Amino acid sequence: GDLLVIAGRGFSSRLFLGTAGYPNQQVMLDALAASGSELVTLAIRRISLDGYSESLVDVLARATGGRAGGPVGLLPNTAGCLTAKEAVLTAQLSREALETPWIKLEVIGDRDLLYPDVEELLRATEELVNDGFVVLPYCNDDPVTCRKLADLGAAAVMPLGAFIGSGMGIRNPHAIETICARSPVPVVLDAGIGTASDAARAMELGCSAVLLNTAVSKARDPVRMAAAMRDAVAAGRAARQAGRMPMRAFAEPSSPQLGLIGS
Amino acid sequence: GDLLVIAGRGFSSRLFLGTAGYPNQQVMLDALAASGSELVTLAIRRISLDGYSESLVDVLARATGGRAGGPVGLLPNTAGCLTAKEAVLTAQLSREALETPWIKLEVIGDRDLLYPDVEELLRATEELVNDGFVVLPYCNDDPVTCRKLADLGAAAVMPLGAFIGSGMGIRNPHAIETICARSPVPVVLDAGIGTASDAARAMELGCSAVLLNTAVSKARDPVRMAAAMRDAVAAGRAARQAGRMPMRAFAEPSSPQLGLIGS
Amino acid sequence: GDLLVIAGRGFSSRLFLGTAGYPNQQVMLDALAASGSELVTLAIRRISLDGYSESLVDVLARATGGRAGGPVGLLPNTAGCLTAKEAVLTAQLSREALETPWIKLEVIGDRDLLYPDVEELLRATEELVNDGFVVLPYCNDDPVTCRKLADLGAAAVMPLGAFIGSGMGIRNPHAIETICARSPVPVVLDAGIGTASDAARAMELGCSAVLLNTAVSKARDPVRMAAAMRDAVAAGRAARQAGRMPMRAFAEPSSPQLGLIGS
Amino acid sequence: GDLLVIAGRGFSSRLFLGTAGYPNQQVMLDALAASGSELVTLAIRRISLDGYSESLVDVLARATGGRAGGPVGLLPNTAGCLTAKEAVLTAQLSREALETPWIKLEVIGDRDLLYPDVEELLRATEELVNDGFVVLPYCNDDPVTCRKLADLGAAAVMPLGAFIGSGMGIRNPHAIETICARSPVPVVLDAGIGTASDAARAMELGCSAVLLNTAVSKARDPVRMAAAMRDAVAAGRAARQAGRMPMRAFAEPSSPQLGLIGS
Repeated sequence: GDLLVIAGRGFSSRLFLGTAGYPNQQVMLDALAASGSELVTLAIRRISLDGYSESLVDVLARATGGRAGGPVGLLPNTAGCLTAKEAVLTAQLSREALETPWIKLEVIGDRDLLYPDVEELLRATEELVNDGFVVLPYCNDDPVTCRKLADLGAAAVMPLGAFIGSGMGIRNPHAIETICARSPVPVVLDAGIGTASDAARAMELGCSAVLLNTAVSKARDPVRMAAAMRDAVAAGRAARQAGRMPMRAFAEPSSPQLGLIGS
Repeated sequence: GDLLVIAGRGFSSRLFLGTAGYPNQQVMLDALAASGSELVTLAIRRISLDGYSESLVDVLARATGGRAGGPVGLLPNTAGCLTAKEAVLTAQLSREALETPWIKLEVIGDRDLLYPDVEELLRATEELVNDGFVVLPYCNDDPVTCRKLADLGAAAVMPLGAFIGSGMGIRNPHAIETICARSPVPVVLDAGIGTASDAARAMELGCSAVLLNTAVSKARDPVRMAAAMRDAVAAGRAARQAGRMPMRAFAEPSSPQLGLIGS
Repeated sequence: GDLLVIAGRGFSSRLFLGTAGYPNQQVMLDALAASGSELVTLAIRRISLDGYSESLVDVLARATGGRAGGPVGLLPNTAGCLTAKEAVLTAQLSREALETPWIKLEVIGDRDLLYPDVEELLRATEELVNDGFVVLPYCNDDPVTCRKLADLGAAAVMPLGAFIGSGMGIRNPHAIETICARSPVPVVLDAGIGTASDAARAMELGCSAVLLNTAVSKARDPVRMAAAMRDAVAAGRAARQAGRMPMRAFAEPSSPQLGLIGS
Repeated sequence: GDLLVIAGRGFSSRLFLGTAGYPNQQVMLDALAASGSELVTLAIRRISLDGYSESLVDVLARATGGRAGGPVGLLPNTAGCLTAKEAVLTAQLSREALETPWIKLEVIGDRDLLYPDVEELLRATEELVNDGFVVLPYCNDDPVTCRKLADLGAAAVMPLGAFIGSGMGIRNPHAIETICARSPVPVVLDAGIGTASDAARAMELGCSAVLLNTAVSKARDPVRMAAAMRDAVAAGRAARQAGRMPMRAFAEPSSPQLGLIGS
């Protein structure tokens, strides 16, 4: 039916999930199952570091291998990288280790805000695209940067709704809507989602998918929130396709008032 | 599982639907089916007027009679009434004609805005409750009026999100949240919903259900929008129960940055 | 020039101030002077209670007596009253003690939220108007209640922007704008103002004046905030009269681009 | 008193004005006088083109020469430039023609949205700073770009509130607040202001000044709107310095309720 295609790969689910910050690994796997997500992102830095995370890849493969669509797709990310050089190197290690050219490209210009550095991001995107990667850059809600990333060959653009981990929702819906209206590649809302209505809103604004992590992993009940997000993304997508009613500043009767009684 | 109970009656679906303004009756029935709604509202005035609408009740009964839960519940409404007296009389005619004591009580103080008249509404609620009705008053987003309606015996309160038919969403989320936090009876968000994320938001604020009409009937594709609303209400309800993450004004890394590369 | 007239009395300043919660009386007087306000509200209950407050009236008279316009006007209020009966009695005591028929009518339906009780408010308004009072009722942002208050003879209506003392600004600008567009009497935004831009916004929405208290008395520097509020009210009023530019969803060049260089 | 200093030059007024789009030149001069502005921006491209605009500089000098502070300061801008190269050339022509090293640097990445191109902007800033210019770059509401501009030697940063000429106000107040909290140089809100409360809000968020054009030139009464903006900027600045009251989700009595009557 309504398949999202990025770089030639089809997704039935338009919800992408992160793997960090869960109470434990089982909750993460249960949340992943409840979300229906077919693509998860994980930090390369963490993987290369410790045994726990190295096995995360195996765990994901085993846990999702039996699904109809096969194992969940991996979207390694370059979280923590501060320069294009560092991000490119991280991506290359990732491709070697995980045998996937897909990369969620994060190049951060501020350690506190985790806000993208546009210059470094564009540089790294160009280099990685030229090196054969499928690049999904995490960027700010800047329509010009989004267009330049697409022009450089990014497979999708991933503008932020709000600062990473803030849960503040979409701070500038007009910017996101503008980006979606003009983007030649899929727009994936990344960062800022705090609750289900935020995810629905992203889709209504025209996003092709939503990527989130903390909103699920730090909910009181991550598994239930994952299911909520699944439904919210579906609802927002359907509402967008259904074509919402126009807003009216003043009221209009929905129940016609033609009756005899009391008139 | 998660049953909503109003006046002793259980509802699996927390989405109530109106019946006005559809392109035609079949679209209305298809939207109703797609919504999963178990309760629909319809204007008494219209029913008492014309043959078409009289049969609306029969049509609904026939179309939904085969469902597992039996035919869809009817919530007749007093749309168009301007005084308590008129609304009470309309409700009594409704009970006689439709053989249900349920009534969505609308007493409007302004024909353009379709905004409730609080004095008349309280008066009519008291009278109808005393007369054995199950009263669901449509009211403004006023916590004191909501509490008084509950004290008078209303089975639920139905504050507006925005003017009827405006599709402007929930104009004052803080008021709705306050009402929900204090209400001894279920709160049903009524009026103002324009798209799916609005419905999800209502549930996240603590509403027990959502009633809407124009957002579905005037969507470009009412049936698809009805399905969107079904999912949005489910998503908002689950998100509320899951306990959302706290908002943070500043960013926090969701991908721990402990790696070796480039540090 | 641009005089506000309420019940035949003209005001050059469209900012009304409360007298509660200041660090001390001198700060209150300095803030009052800085605000340029010509009308202050004070709680009758407090006045009738203690010597300090009884003298508040004298203090205000002495401190403002030398102004060009004469002493500041007093707008006693019925804060703390929960019923029409109580409010009417308080107003009568106020008129006797302070020799003014002006009364800011507060009838509260919830001790925590300090939210108006519409039924009691309408009742008290009717009674006090009939008894010759100049009634300025504090009400919710409900266009029907506002119209009924005006119909009963209220000299102005004073809808809330947000809960008293919350400083949350105007939670439902559309409601305030609707009230202003339809009101036959001046609309005074009362409660909810937290900072200067809130006050400017109220005036831009069409309010005739703003009444505030906590935003000044609980600012770190009340006197400077009072001056800010004075300017903000003037700015909002002028902006309203100047007729703002239309909003456009997309950008338009403000600097024409007709040049030779690089084109 | 409260002087704003940019690149060693002091400004009593924190409102900067544009010169485009007025009904006629006299209205522009009257608005300028009413605004109290000490710095006006004008497009180089236009100036170099036609006699009218060449004389604009003379007109401004003559009209404002008699002021206490001397003639109004000129802030030529590079509106319409799409590349760093073009902007640098335009700035150099400007310096030669107008004998000022001050330049409002606009490098646009989208002709419709007039949205900055971050890469080109950074490049041009570096070049112009090295060439001795006083550079005030118009940028997006991106804290990393703002910091990099300051690091490169920009005298101030000028993030947008919304698209140029849209009058949509500040779409992302949290971003502006974050930029202000971290900026080592003055932050001037540029673009998006539609009415007085927007300007006050910008100052409350921590901006050092506001630059606007269309909000005044396209108001129904530009001169009155200019005065409104002057007061709004003063109000927002004072409110910021006064330290606003904290917001509270629930109400608190501002009039203590200690009375005898009815209790």
